[in-house]
Amino acid sequence: MKVSPENTVVGFIGIGVMGNSMAGHILNAGYELHVYSRSRAKAELICQKGAVWEDTTSQLAKKCNVIITIVGFPKDVEEVYLGPDGIIENAAPEAIVIDMTTSSPSLAVKIYDTAQKRSIHALDAPVSGGDIGARNAALSIMVGGDTASFEAVMPLFEIMGKNIHFQGKSGSGQHTKMVNQISIAAGMVGLCESLAYAVKSGLDPETVLRSIGAGAAASWTLNNLGPRIIKGDFAPGFYVRHFIKDMGIAIESAQEMGLDLPGLMLAKSLYDKLAQKGYEYDGTQALYRLFI
Amino acid sequence: MKVSPENTVVGFIGIGVMGNSMAGHILNAGYELHVYSRSRAKAELICQKGAVWEDTTSQLAKKCNVIITIVGFPKDVEEVYLGPDGIIENAAPEAIVIDMTTSSPSLAVKIYDTAQKRSIHALDAPVSGGDIGARNAALSIMVGGDTASFEAVMPLFEIMGKNIHFQGKSGSGQHTKMVNQISIAAGMVGLCESLAYAVKSGLDPETVLRSIGAGAAASWTLNNLGPRIIKGDFAPGFYVRHFIKDMGIAIESAQEMGLDLPGLMLAKSLYDKLAQKGYEYDGTQALYRLFI
Repeated sequence: MKVSPENTVVGFIGIGVMGNSMAGHILNAGYELHVYSRSRAKAELICQKGAVWEDTTSQLAKKCNVIITIVGFPKDVEEVYLGPDGIIENAAPEAIVIDMTTSSPSLAVKIYDTAQKRSIHALDAPVSGGDIGARNAALSIMVGGDTASFEAVMPLFEIMGKNIHFQGKSGSGQHTKMVNQISIAAGMVGLCESLAYAVKSGLDPETVLRSIGAGAAASWTLNNLGPRIIKGDFAPGFYVRHFIKDMGIAIESAQEMGLDLPGLMLAKSLYDKLAQKGYEYDGTQALYRLFI
Repeated sequence: MKVSPENTVVGFIGIGVMGNSMAGHILNAGYELHVYSRSRAKAELICQKGAVWEDTTSQLAKKCNVIITIVGFPKDVEEVYLGPDGIIENAAPEAIVIDMTTSSPSLAVKIYDTAQKRSIHALDAPVSGGDIGARNAALSIMVGGDTASFEAVMPLFEIMGKNIHFQGKSGSGQHTKMVNQISIAAGMVGLCESLAYAVKSGLDPETVLRSIGAGAAASWTLNNLGPRIIKGDFAPGFYVRHFIKDMGIAIESAQEMGLDLPGLMLAKSLYDKLAQKGYEYDGTQALYRLFI
């Protein structure tokens, strides 16, 4: 059975930059929406629009049959799901819980297994597309878990995103997001080294981008973040500190599989250096600072 | 003054996979065309179509007022231009010579300076777009040298390519190509590590590409070479050995500028390893072999 405003009360935990837009779309679609966030202030606006504030995770979990989370780090995910006041202890049997945080694949499996013992259905469904994708309901959503749960909540995914794919068993959504981040990490290193070379060799970087931005070197990173770097605009679309988190998860996960990823290790070490220099709240394109 | 079939005899040195298509377009546009290549057999077809075979570089140079070269390695470029039988010694004053090989920026400057002493005008104009781009007259052409020469031979560039940009003084075309290759090198490492992670973690790589191929991880490399890797197709679009050459030039050139490019160094070392395993005549996507 598919969820609808008639048969479903949605809980949303984590009203940050992403969560605020995503929860807003669900509210606009006519769902009864209960929200919880670490900082109540961030949920003020959405509560004015009709969302119901809950004081604790457990209180929210008891009232909702679909619960969506998008929080910060894997430790936050673990606490929200498996902690003493957590979702799994408190949600009703047959609830569907969806973690949309970029988090650890093995933690996703742990949550899935724990949930299953209480007949709760867990999906891992991280997103890409950033704040703009969230605002425009155009996120890519990568989903792991059971197909029946995936299909049941598809109407909610479609409210938040556009490019929605079931990737396989529990953890597969997170693994897919890691694949995405591994590609992006290499692309950022390549872009920053390319532009540093262009500038050092006396080229005009804008003219260079016109030459190379449509051929085999073309990428979203090059064509979207290249121009920002040239302007010296290091404002965050995606924070350095969050990217470091993601790369850390990917490296740990690769190590668990016995897979050596030297390009990813290098990218992570460069971003660590950038953070040590005090730029962890810059956007990921600030990696360029290391080369100039 | 712009070149035209009425005022220009074109010489073309290097009838390989790229050169054969490029020279063919010039011939079809109505130019008198003289050709030389290390292996006469490769020029057989274009000579049947009307090109005139020349037995030596010097013989060709004496008969042509625009000379285009696209040969293998910088040492070949050096020999063809500056060797005892070379172009610069033998071309007439006011000839325009265009090296379209991907070669060393500092060698381009050396050729330009030597040519200038004999009132010959040298351009460096490497291309991207590969054999398909050459065949479809859709190459990107990155040009360094003097604007007057660039503008004079623009009609020839337009016969071979689509995305044609003057990048600055002598060497700037080669530097721009290096920027292109630095980006591609990182992208290949990212793609291969991504797909290796996807496969190792039990994902279906085709479904993964559907999730990530349209977002922030999107790139020409991912969307064009990803599917080939998944099929186990390592046939060359662009040879490993040529890519190693290009990265070598870029590293040397970066070192001359005092620029440290760890991502490029890593990519080069991985490709060196691949070549040592006997895969230097595979396509660049064969880097994936190292991860499986």
